[in-house]
Amino acid sequence: ALLMLVNAHFTPKLLAGKRVLITAGATLEMIDPVRGITNLSSGKMGYAIAQAASDMGADVTLVSGITALNPIANAANIKAESAQAMYEAVMSNIMNQDVFIAVAAVADYRPVTQQHEKIKKSTSSLTLELTPNKDILADVASLPNAPFCVGFAAETENLLEYAETKRKAKKLPLIVANLAKEALGSEENSVTLIDKNGAHPIQRASKTEVAKLLLQHIAHML
Amino acid sequence: ALLMLVNAHFTPKLLAGKRVLITAGATLEMIDPVRGITNLSSGKMGYAIAQAASDMGADVTLVSGITALNPIANAANIKAESAQAMYEAVMSNIMNQDVFIAVAAVADYRPVTQQHEKIKKSTSSLTLELTPNKDILADVASLPNAPFCVGFAAETENLLEYAETKRKAKKLPLIVANLAKEALGSEENSVTLIDKNGAHPIQRASKTEVAKLLLQHIAHML
Repeated sequence: ALLMLVNAHFTPKLLAGKRVLITAGATLEMIDPVRGITNLSSGKMGYAIAQAASDMGADVTLVSGITALNPIANAANIKAESAQAMYEAVMSNIMNQDVFIAVAAVADYRPVTQQHEKIKKSTSSLTLELTPNKDILADVASLPNAPFCVGFAAETENLLEYAETKRKAKKLPLIVANLAKEALGSEENSVTLIDKNGAHPIQRASKTEVAKLLLQHIAHML
Repeated sequence: ALLMLVNAHFTPKLLAGKRVLITAGATLEMIDPVRGITNLSSGKMGYAIAQAASDMGADVTLVSGITALNPIANAANIKAESAQAMYEAVMSNIMNQDVFIAVAAVADYRPVTQQHEKIKKSTSSLTLELTPNKDILADVASLPNAPFCVGFAAETENLLEYAETKRKAKKLPLIVANLAKEALGSEENSVTLIDKNGAHPIQRASKTEVAKLLLQHIAHML
């Protein structure tokens, strides 16, 4: 805790007076009362960004899915476990935000039907019908007075190509591209920032360090 | 750590010389490299049983799926994230065990196909084909020299009826029935032990206390 205070004290206040909304962690889409679809996001990257943004003087709201991490001091911490709950939490807090950083690994799909009782095992196979979830980031970026929107692209192939396609499709000023197997669950990350001027690689570093460099880049673009 | 040593010192050695294999936690069945099907088990009940069994003098092997808990001191800790990995870990360690306690919430189904690359989001719905996993507990209970086998039934309805049906179908001397919403993720649990003599309710208590009472019951049945 002392180290965190020292870090905060010596961090330039590049985001003083800015309101920053960050999503982090994985969502969980329930199939029945005990089972669900989730993903490997640990929440560490999003929490590191929330902490660094707070250290840089921002007023931080952290909307968090499933994670084992502790809440961030000096931030408004909001839990939202499903993609739908996260959509609602973001939309009801997006007014007057200056920056929106969508780090959470939101489920692209949810089961069409959520069973009220536990599905009993049988010896036959089972078919699960999935339907697409709303795209939180695309909808925020389309708002009339949208904040500065930053996306994350965690891919397993064609990283920069997929990330740039995603950036343009969602009309984002900035996207952070990273390889899923290097990012998910790890204490470190290796990312490439992509904006209209091209690709800016950040070499492999702790998620805390990556968070600071990302926020410096954002601060210069505001 | 001191408290744990004191607890271990004053616990009667009811399981001295016994070899006990315990599964705990949730399994994760991958859909693609970043997404999977899991459940709400925290691992706390299984880890509490492993700790209590060790305190009672048993030689404990703990096969653990997904959990945020720390390994148990004085136990052989084995990780097995998928149902198939857990099946193999149990079967390769089951020889010469005296007791097998299957606490893990093993996925009943896994995706028929595991995609090698992340599935890209589209606007259309998606169908996921699932196939049943092998039943670890039933297969262990059917072994020629099967250990004393204990199952867990986490249900959302018809608790005692479903649990007794499961006990008979898998030919178990003992099953532990609990309601999913009272058990999963909680620090406490309220269970009913069911054996050939009928139902033995244990009133709501910490998982540590429930673990001790369960192991005492098992020790008297050996």
